[in-house]
Amino acid sequence: MRVLVLHGPNLNMLGTREPDVYGRMTLAGVNAMLEEEAGRLGIELKTFQSNVEGELVTAIQQAVGWADVIVINPAAYTHTSVALRDAITAVAIPTIEVHLSNVHAREPFRHHSYIASVAAGQICGFGAESYRLALIAAAGLAPRIND
Amino acid sequence: MRVLVLHGPNLNMLGTREPDVYGRMTLAGVNAMLEEEAGRLGIELKTFQSNVEGELVTAIQQAVGWADVIVINPAAYTHTSVALRDAITAVAIPTIEVHLSNVHAREPFRHHSYIASVAAGQICGFGAESYRLALIAAAGLAPRIND
Amino acid sequence: MRVLVLHGPNLNMLGTREPDVYGRMTLAGVNAMLEEEAGRLGIELKTFQSNVEGELVTAIQQAVGWADVIVINPAAYTHTSVALRDAITAVAIPTIEVHLSNVHAREPFRHHSYIASVAAGQICGFGAESYRLALIAAAGLAPRIND
Amino acid sequence: MRVLVLHGPNLNMLGTREPDVYGRMTLAGVNAMLEEEAGRLGIELKTFQSNVEGELVTAIQQAVGWADVIVINPAAYTHTSVALRDAITAVAIPTIEVHLSNVHAREPFRHHSYIASVAAGQICGFGAESYRLALIAAAGLAPRIND
Amino acid sequence: MRVLVLHGPNLNMLGTREPDVYGRMTLAGVNAMLEEEAGRLGIELKTFQSNVEGELVTAIQQAVGWADVIVINPAAYTHTSVALRDAITAVAIPTIEVHLSNVHAREPFRHHSYIASVAAGQICGFGAESYRLALIAAAGLAPRIND
Amino acid sequence: MRVLVLHGPNLNMLGTREPDVYGRMTLAGVNAMLEEEAGRLGIELKTFQSNVEGELVTAIQQAVGWADVIVINPAAYTHTSVALRDAITAVAIPTIEVHLSNVHAREPFRHHSYIASVAAGQICGFGAESYRLALIAAAGLAPRIND
Amino acid sequence: MRVLVLHGPNLNMLGTREPDVYGRMTLAGVNAMLEEEAGRLGIELKTFQSNVEGELVTAIQQAVGWADVIVINPAAYTHTSVALRDAITAVAIPTIEVHLSNVHAREPFRHHSYIASVAAGQICGFGAESYRLALIAAAGLAPRIND
Amino acid sequence: MRVLVLHGPNLNMLGTREPDVYGRMTLAGVNAMLEEEAGRLGIELKTFQSNVEGELVTAIQQAVGWADVIVINPAAYTHTSVALRDAITAVAIPTIEVHLSNVHAREPFRHHSYIASVAAGQICGFGAESYRLALIAAAGLAPRIND
Amino acid sequence: MRVLVLHGPNLNMLGTREPDVYGRMTLAGVNAMLEEEAGRLGIELKTFQSNVEGELVTAIQQAVGWADVIVINPAAYTHTSVALRDAITAVAIPTIEVHLSNVHAREPFRHHSYIASVAAGQICGFGAESYRLALIAAAGLAPRIND
Amino acid sequence: MRVLVLHGPNLNMLGTREPDVYGRMTLAGVNAMLEEEAGRLGIELKTFQSNVEGELVTAIQQAVGWADVIVINPAAYTHTSVALRDAITAVAIPTIEVHLSNVHAREPFRHHSYIASVAAGQICGFGAESYRLALIAAAGLAPRIND
Amino acid sequence: MRVLVLHGPNLNMLGTREPDVYGRMTLAGVNAMLEEEAGRLGIELKTFQSNVEGELVTAIQQAVGWADVIVINPAAYTHTSVALRDAITAVAIPTIEVHLSNVHAREPFRHHSYIASVAAGQICGFGAESYRLALIAAAGLAPRIND
Amino acid sequence: MRVLVLHGPNLNMLGTREPDVYGRMTLAGVNAMLEEEAGRLGIELKTFQSNVEGELVTAIQQAVGWADVIVINPAAYTHTSVALRDAITAVAIPTIEVHLSNVHAREPFRHHSYIASVAAGQICGFGAESYRLALIAAAGLAPRIND
Repeated sequence: MRVLVLHGPNLNMLGTREPDVYGRMTLAGVNAMLEEEAGRLGIELKTFQSNVEGELVTAIQQAVGWADVIVINPAAYTHTSVALRDAITAVAIPTIEVHLSNVHAREPFRHHSYIASVAAGQICGFGAESYRLALIAAAGLAPRIND
Repeated sequence: MRVLVLHGPNLNMLGTREPDVYGRMTLAGVNAMLEEEAGRLGIELKTFQSNVEGELVTAIQQAVGWADVIVINPAAYTHTSVALRDAITAVAIPTIEVHLSNVHAREPFRHHSYIASVAAGQICGFGAESYRLALIAAAGLAPRIND
Repeated sequence: MRVLVLHGPNLNMLGTREPDVYGRMTLAGVNAMLEEEAGRLGIELKTFQSNVEGELVTAIQQAVGWADVIVINPAAYTHTSVALRDAITAVAIPTIEVHLSNVHAREPFRHHSYIASVAAGQICGFGAESYRLALIAAAGLAPRIND
Repeated sequence: MRVLVLHGPNLNMLGTREPDVYGRMTLAGVNAMLEEEAGRLGIELKTFQSNVEGELVTAIQQAVGWADVIVINPAAYTHTSVALRDAITAVAIPTIEVHLSNVHAREPFRHHSYIASVAAGQICGFGAESYRLALIAAAGLAPRIND
Repeated sequence: MRVLVLHGPNLNMLGTREPDVYGRMTLAGVNAMLEEEAGRLGIELKTFQSNVEGELVTAIQQAVGWADVIVINPAAYTHTSVALRDAITAVAIPTIEVHLSNVHAREPFRHHSYIASVAAGQICGFGAESYRLALIAAAGLAPRIND
Repeated sequence: MRVLVLHGPNLNMLGTREPDVYGRMTLAGVNAMLEEEAGRLGIELKTFQSNVEGELVTAIQQAVGWADVIVINPAAYTHTSVALRDAITAVAIPTIEVHLSNVHAREPFRHHSYIASVAAGQICGFGAESYRLALIAAAGLAPRIND
Repeated sequence: MRVLVLHGPNLNMLGTREPDVYGRMTLAGVNAMLEEEAGRLGIELKTFQSNVEGELVTAIQQAVGWADVIVINPAAYTHTSVALRDAITAVAIPTIEVHLSNVHAREPFRHHSYIASVAAGQICGFGAESYRLALIAAAGLAPRIND
Repeated sequence: MRVLVLHGPNLNMLGTREPDVYGRMTLAGVNAMLEEEAGRLGIELKTFQSNVEGELVTAIQQAVGWADVIVINPAAYTHTSVALRDAITAVAIPTIEVHLSNVHAREPFRHHSYIASVAAGQICGFGAESYRLALIAAAGLAPRIND
Repeated sequence: MRVLVLHGPNLNMLGTREPDVYGRMTLAGVNAMLEEEAGRLGIELKTFQSNVEGELVTAIQQAVGWADVIVINPAAYTHTSVALRDAITAVAIPTIEVHLSNVHAREPFRHHSYIASVAAGQICGFGAESYRLALIAAAGLAPRIND
Repeated sequence: MRVLVLHGPNLNMLGTREPDVYGRMTLAGVNAMLEEEAGRLGIELKTFQSNVEGELVTAIQQAVGWADVIVINPAAYTHTSVALRDAITAVAIPTIEVHLSNVHAREPFRHHSYIASVAAGQICGFGAESYRLALIAAAGLAPRIND
Repeated sequence: MRVLVLHGPNLNMLGTREPDVYGRMTLAGVNAMLEEEAGRLGIELKTFQSNVEGELVTAIQQAVGWADVIVINPAAYTHTSVALRDAITAVAIPTIEVHLSNVHAREPFRHHSYIASVAAGQICGFGAESYRLALIAAAGLAPRIND
Repeated sequence: MRVLVLHGPNLNMLGTREPDVYGRMTLAGVNAMLEEEAGRLGIELKTFQSNVEGELVTAIQQAVGWADVIVINPAAYTHTSVALRDAITAVAIPTIEVHLSNVHAREPFRHHSYIASVAAGQICGFGAESYRLALIAAAGLAPRIND
């Protein structure tokens, strides 16, 4: 199984940005932790971060033919990007939406996600652990994919 | 670690109710699967289902002094129950909200949760697997609880 | 043909409660009138009233395998209960929503029904006669049911 | 007892228009079925269909002095016509609103009726049977009318 | 000066329709009273009533080249007719909107007028006197028209 | 008959303020014109202008026992003053609301009036002529008052 | 005079639940304090707490023939229960709504009460003292009741 | 291929009505231009204009069995007519919505169309050219129709 | 303990203004009753009424250094005055909001209070008794103040 | 005449992405078809696609001095991009908005376009044919441009 | 150049009122600082504070013929006063709106300003420095004024 | 002190783009003017413009460790970019939002800023002078920064 993990805008700041909200682990730390979990689950992993909406769109498009599942933390673009939503629909790869923080407990504009209704599922509120749970969930999606 | 798993209204119908939306596993099946996972994680488990909002409120209250974490699928009460929300706030036990289906992809009235903003996090869209991920997440909350 | 008639909260007060709005017939009177009409239509009847949302949910669940049609006056829960809606969807028994008063001519919060969009049809505004019309309508649903 | 049955715009297309939503009986068929039921109930019947809002308004006005009850399926004008509403209020004849389909389960703009709050009651969702139930309901209004 | 007075739907019922709201004078009575006032003001008068929106539209169009001012009581169409609004804009004849009742003190849907923002002014709440005031106002518009 | 004419905030600027919207007549000019019309109608007149909401409230209160009718141009306070509305209700003197400009054709916040629904009627859009029409309307209210 | 005091969901947690918001007095403490005040005012007192909406509905119904006044803290059900509202209307016993905290200073969903518009009055924000003030207010309602 | 072109209310005023918004070509001119284009495209054409909503509904109904495509400029009824929408759905003839002006750049109430979501497509903003483009688009729909 | 009681606009009309809504006691009567109750509670009292929003603001500002508690019936300014709200916040004196009528059972615009969320608590619906309960509540605030 | 055709995000997926919604022609196919049509119309063509909002903004800016008309399918950015809107306004080149699908018949968030109100016109719902119609419309804009 | 600086309600409390939000400088201090800056800029200064909306309106009116620019901190009246807005429009003197705090980061009702859309510009969030920046901005407006 | 000045999308068009709205100075002119002012204030300056949202996000991130204050004109991204908002929060550098035009006097969608509530303050409406005032304001923030 192959999983593409996408990190949205400002996630390259992890560990320094508002540690009370987002935790103290850096993005490199998150990716290393995910590599370890992927090894345990027999998953081949690629990770990519960008601050540019259109580059994330392109990354999703280029996942066609490689990725079985996409795990995406769209960050700020969760709430404003129809382009990411359309890309997910276009590639028809099962996608899991993750958030470090519990977006439902923050500002009202963070309660709506353009991604959620085209995702397979959503996991939020567990810090970097949200990503690890998404990898486990991705592994659980495997049987459906092989149908 | 001790975890109370609460199932809201109509979840006793699992396996027969709209299998396209909620899957074919019965509630007994879900509980058995959770027992197994709990064993693996060293978690002591209690489960409870009720169709009555007030009985779920009471179950949350009675968890004080026993449960380290509550995992709740509030089902229909997700969208209408301030009483469940207040109970969770009152007992101050970290609570994880789960849903079998991806509520964000269903009717608009299912997009709002009174529980989400007082929960630690939310997991939805993975069928019975949503519960299992919540148990793993609960285990991950342990260090914080011991602080 | 078997029909379950469910009466929601405060309907046990019929005849004494706001007679200008709800009429002077008691709930026992309504049930007797319905028994008579059911006899005429060759319908086997069960009736049940509860003030507790969850007990009405359970009554709907227990109708599986017995009732061909459910006639429900959800009263106040019409406007607030996703749980009743989910129960009706779960059992997949054709359901007719009735109201004694014309809810559309009352307070704005009574204009929305969580039940209406999962019911077969809605009859309101004819007092106790609304129930009798619903029984006749239930009889008319029979051919479809036997398909 | 005399009842005027009014059919709104596009109901002359019945039987050919979207049979999945509106059934396969033609308007002539509906009127014949209503004549039969009216005979059984001792009701004198007139029926009228128009695509023109103002002609329906005029038909309501001309019912004064003849009709004891009006049964109206305002169809599309349900949601847009204050003029029909004002006509019903002006003539002060008890009016029953009917719909073939369950309007509450369709597009949101069909959930609001300008007629409902000035009608005696509303019946919807039972196909042509909705009209027949309305005739029976009209018969039930008789005693009030004779007061 | 020539003035066209247009009466919208249900105004032919004046005197019989809800006399508490609209007064006891018939439409013929209103027109006679207006003829008298017009004589006093040196105004040539035409009056027209229709229940059909499109006929009122046509009447406005045909006023081109004859009427200096239009006085219109759009009645129910006040709140629903963009077509009347467009006709008024199309003919570019100064138009005064009148209402018998104080529409601002009635149901919320009567608070919005599609006509008001393309009218010269609005007079409401004075019963048949509203029309007479509009004739006087029309006379006052004369100098502007002769510019 | 005695009429109190109240001018709201900024109307003391009439003639200089935005003449395209409000005309070129000064407030003194308006009052003189009204005195003349009042003479013709046999009306005893008092006029008062204030920029202070509370002073207008007090003026309305002090009209008790003197004025048969109040004519008020609440200007900016039309849209923001519950206090003026309450004063009008408290004194129970029939009140006519006037506006120089057609408020319905201006900014959306000018479309709502706290005064309109407690006034007898509203006249707007005719410049200073709006006031004169209101005096005529006041004279027409007399018979009702003497009932 | 006889007063029924009803405590809604989670109020059995008083004293332990969020003491910063709700104070440190237990429900037993509140009831004892109320008994003392009732004695001083010559009021006969009954108190009842439930987490179940339908049980509170039933308690209100059973107050008919005993209670002169109901004092209710509907807690979470304030904002979601039409059934409690309907019960209060049905029994037609003057009802005083109380809240420990100032609900108007909390989350927006706590600003709306289904109970308030059918209650005699509302007292909130004074902790347990809110209940005591309600008892005094109940005593003040006595003369009206004896009318 | 046969195309019915329908012109809504006030379009008979074309050329004289607000030429800045709608252009200087008369309706006869538009129809002549369309005849010419239809000849070039091998399309048989019928055109019809009415100010009466119900007559346009009837015209759509009568197109059954003749027209392969309907081109409609619903003008003012675009924003208010559910009846036209229902007629289009009822006849199941592919329909193209056109507007002379760019409705999206005008008053907010012109931004919503009841027709658009049941039309095949929409063309607006090109003056009379909008109609000609619609004819070309109609020709392009032919293959689908022959399927 | 010293308490300033502020009466908002139109409260000087008490006893004459809409006695069905506000009761028959005059403002002087209310103040006398409050003096008596204050004597019983050992409270030193000042009262002030104004129709001018800014004078009430100034009165609140001048309470600094004298009043321990402010009791205010902001009347119409409840719903429109940010200035009063800011004054209360600025002086940081605990403030109790009172209303004679049950504002929650009146027009929708009376359901929102700019004052409530910066007040200690709110009492409404008990007529002049609302003020007396507020004095008792003020006395109950004393211990906190002395902290 | 020179026309710049801009394709927004995900349009590079054409032919593979949701063919039921967007058709089976690739973007290269669309561009080839447009070249052919441009040849017929004597139009010089440039085409550009990007997933990056800012690159589309830059492309619009760089059209100054070259393009007479811009044809743009803003795709997902239609609904979220004020930057594209501002660019179109800034360059003051007549712009035609096109969509492959009928956006008005899809999710509500696709009904609003930031581009439409600054475009010359809009064409949607005809698949790749929408672009070709836009080229023809562009040709029709020429005379105005030469003014 | 002459500048009138207006301070709205509660600004006389500066230095004592919520110093965390508004800073510790008194109004006298602010005025002194502004006098100093005005001297540096060659500006003649007048300052005025009032808690009464109507007095601020009058102050604006009296600035005609004296002030070249008005600098106003409308404080609470920012959000509620159409009268101040109308006064600014009436006098047609360029007006700069200032706020001590960043109103956009406070309660939602502080996000809307009736003044902003008729002001030349807005400066907020810099404490007393906001005023000084406004004086500098006023100086920058001078050339336009002399046009 | 070091200040980073960021210019958002389309600001590279300054001087040519809608000069009535944005003035005639080019972006190079603005930057030169700012350099001059910075020299006077002892500020070290960097400026950057991009049409790409993500590049502006990156520019903010890279300001960490260099800039004491950020001055940003987010232009179109003001209203749509949560990513810019998150970047500003992430770097925790005091940020001043500027706009050339008075955004509050333009289209409604320009009244909301995602940036404003995380900025120190906002300055708008003074053309290029808005930037110069922001530099002066930045200088004024210095003392706080050194705290």
